[in-house]
Amino acid sequence: MPPHASPIANVSHSPYAPKYTDSLSRLTNWSIIESTLREGEQFANAFFDTAKKIEIAKALDDFGVEYIELTSPAASEQSRLDCIAIANLGLKAKILTHVRCHMDDARIACETGVDGLDVVIGTSSYLREFSHGKDMDRIIKDATEVINYVKSRGLEVRFSSEDSFRSDLVDLLNLYKAVDQLGVNRVGIADTVGCANPRQVYDLVKTLRSVLKPTTDIECHFHNDTGCATANAYAALEAGATHIDTSVLGIGERNGITPIGNLIARMFTVDPDYVASKYKLHQLRDLENLIADAVEIQVPFNNCITGYCAFTHKAGIHAKAILNNPATYEILKPEVFGMTRYVSIGHRLTGWNAVKNRAEQLGLALSDDDLKAITGKIKALADIKNQSMEDVDGLLRNFHAYKVAGDHSAIQQLLVVPEETVAPVEVAVN
Amino acid sequence: MPPHASPIANVSHSPYAPKYTDSLSRLTNWSIIESTLREGEQFANAFFDTAKKIEIAKALDDFGVEYIELTSPAASEQSRLDCIAIANLGLKAKILTHVRCHMDDARIACETGVDGLDVVIGTSSYLREFSHGKDMDRIIKDATEVINYVKSRGLEVRFSSEDSFRSDLVDLLNLYKAVDQLGVNRVGIADTVGCANPRQVYDLVKTLRSVLKPTTDIECHFHNDTGCATANAYAALEAGATHIDTSVLGIGERNGITPIGNLIARMFTVDPDYVASKYKLHQLRDLENLIADAVEIQVPFNNCITGYCAFTHKAGIHAKAILNNPATYEILKPEVFGMTRYVSIGHRLTGWNAVKNRAEQLGLALSDDDLKAITGKIKALADIKNQSMEDVDGLLRNFHAYKVAGDHSAIQQLLVVPEETVAPVEVAVN
Repeated sequence: MPPHASPIANVSHSPYAPKYTDSLSRLTNWSIIESTLREGEQFANAFFDTAKKIEIAKALDDFGVEYIELTSPAASEQSRLDCIAIANLGLKAKILTHVRCHMDDARIACETGVDGLDVVIGTSSYLREFSHGKDMDRIIKDATEVINYVKSRGLEVRFSSEDSFRSDLVDLLNLYKAVDQLGVNRVGIADTVGCANPRQVYDLVKTLRSVLKPTTDIECHFHNDTGCATANAYAALEAGATHIDTSVLGIGERNGITPIGNLIARMFTVDPDYVASKYKLHQLRDLENLIADAVEIQVPFNNCITGYCAFTHKAGIHAKAILNNPATYEILKPEVFGMTRYVSIGHRLTGWNAVKNRAEQLGLALSDDDLKAITGKIKALADIKNQSMEDVDGLLRNFHAYKVAGDHSAIQQLLVVPEETVAPVEVAVN
Repeated sequence: MPPHASPIANVSHSPYAPKYTDSLSRLTNWSIIESTLREGEQFANAFFDTAKKIEIAKALDDFGVEYIELTSPAASEQSRLDCIAIANLGLKAKILTHVRCHMDDARIACETGVDGLDVVIGTSSYLREFSHGKDMDRIIKDATEVINYVKSRGLEVRFSSEDSFRSDLVDLLNLYKAVDQLGVNRVGIADTVGCANPRQVYDLVKTLRSVLKPTTDIECHFHNDTGCATANAYAALEAGATHIDTSVLGIGERNGITPIGNLIARMFTVDPDYVASKYKLHQLRDLENLIADAVEIQVPFNNCITGYCAFTHKAGIHAKAILNNPATYEILKPEVFGMTRYVSIGHRLTGWNAVKNRAEQLGLALSDDDLKAITGKIKALADIKNQSMEDVDGLLRNFHAYKVAGDHSAIQQLLVVPEETVAPVEVAVN
């Protein structure tokens, strides 16, 4: 049996992982900039009033995120008042607000009491032409003014390009080098349109790392338009990024960004103890339910950890192996996340090992031959309709009762199936 | 303005992409093995009767998938009959069934009329100990018998390891080399537990490519437990994989596999014309609704293309730029997928450019100053509650009517807002 390196994980890491660790890797030393209250507010359905924002900020803080990012105070008067309210809650997390690279916005933001400003400007040719109309020299000039101002106010400052992966690489590096010289705390890369793939991310972050001072952090922001937001975050950390933007369930503009739960799942496979030391993992489910309720959506069925079937095992050979050792088909332990494992058996893909396990749970002594006969009946019935756990339990209990009573004809009757053939148990899966 | 290389795409590919093209890359020459009727049947909620299976198979075939994979005929009698029924529909797609590496299963499968068998066996130490109990010599011996049998029956054969990313690399390469010598059509890699990340996938596929005959195809199967199933599929194609397993919406064991819609979105960014030439993209939404209805789930809100807000733009500067040029914040054209763009404006992140566009749609002649004043009112109201498009339209129409009538006091009245301050329009986003 392969060793379990961690008491909380089914597997400490996948066996290839250590071979790929780069000298710059931050896979075991990274932070979350949680943007449910900024990016998340851009989700189509989202409207958070002040009380809800405060509830969400407290829940995020209690979960353990390192930073909480808020909508710009320049967006509306209430947004400004909410920045002030949340900045004054006395949370452990640092509070950031996200502003355009404009002096007007920076001045308003610096008055709110936040710990830092996330400053952004579009750098792709698309956005330079169709959004703000500035050339790169003008962008650097504006950035210099804003960064110097925020630093003079004693606040943390991040400077990010927008649409980084459709920006000219040399333009980007010039810009980042310039703001690095000004002493920004972090630079940001943003895949604003969701076009980036992991190797592009890896290469851009690695290149950027070589251009910046070693003490300058790198924050990354990935949209999910092509399904890569979580993998891109992982690739960024492999290449030396230090901070990842997330939102709860991934809510945000269009179909959103890296979901905090997915990032947690991904990073948990690398170093479960590190992840568990930073975040209260058993609270993830409540956090996701809080946001789902607030924006009136369902937690997606395929959410990594709290999707309703993330720990449900159905196929026969999966169930058999899971019952022998959960690590066979689970890399996350459900109980660490306050979830439970469920082995589904009332269907035609079931196998007799799973049925045997259920009989044992019910305290029913049945032979392997008994259990194989019962499994045949379940599968034949399930060719017509899936059965509930109660249906399966009833079948097991009746069989056991007839056996104890020695009533063989009742057992024969019980095993009659609507189909002539009973197929072999267990079905190939992967 | 950056050139649009394709008439159907907002961007032909991200600007970095060509620099990373490998000699082995199959990014523009790949096929789908659609497994909704196999992997998808392992989804907790799934029960497909014969009529539904046939409806799904026909929809997949019409959409254009190259292969359709079915549950093993050894799973149950009805599963066997359904294999026969679907294999005899005369579809353009090749029909496969997925079986354990057992002669019993292979014999049953070869009688169903399918075009090929996807043969699988667990190779990780986990599965060798806790599932089937066979050592690698025994696995190769069994594989040889099954592969020779399937080939003798004139059918296509794929041989896959299971849990490939927790298997010993040298064991795997020995196994694949052995089955390659036997003349399999494809070998398969399966991330059965969802632990793999894109660089691991890239390296394993690239290594495997160097071991196999050039004519042997490589099929990849990725679970989504840590949110990387789509990115892993992309990495596999970069490294020379030829076939990707998908299911509609990603349904499958636990939280499922690579969703066909996400793979389509990802690959569309590389070569939209190629993707559009293979698949009827405007049918994707119906296909996803068909499966969502069949298994009684909602299409996840964050689904890449058909999530209900995938083409909704909300933040002010997004809306402004989108109205100037959709390519600014959209890499997929909604109309190609039978979807429509929606610019949301009744909220506090809105901007006056979006309001101006709406006024133009309504045919209302208003000055920029008028529109900025109206936007201020919308934002102030939206600090209390999001407004519907009807609310915004009513405000625009009333303002216009008062202006035409020259009723300035009515306009003043209309613009009274519940807050004292009206903040600047447009908010920083990325």
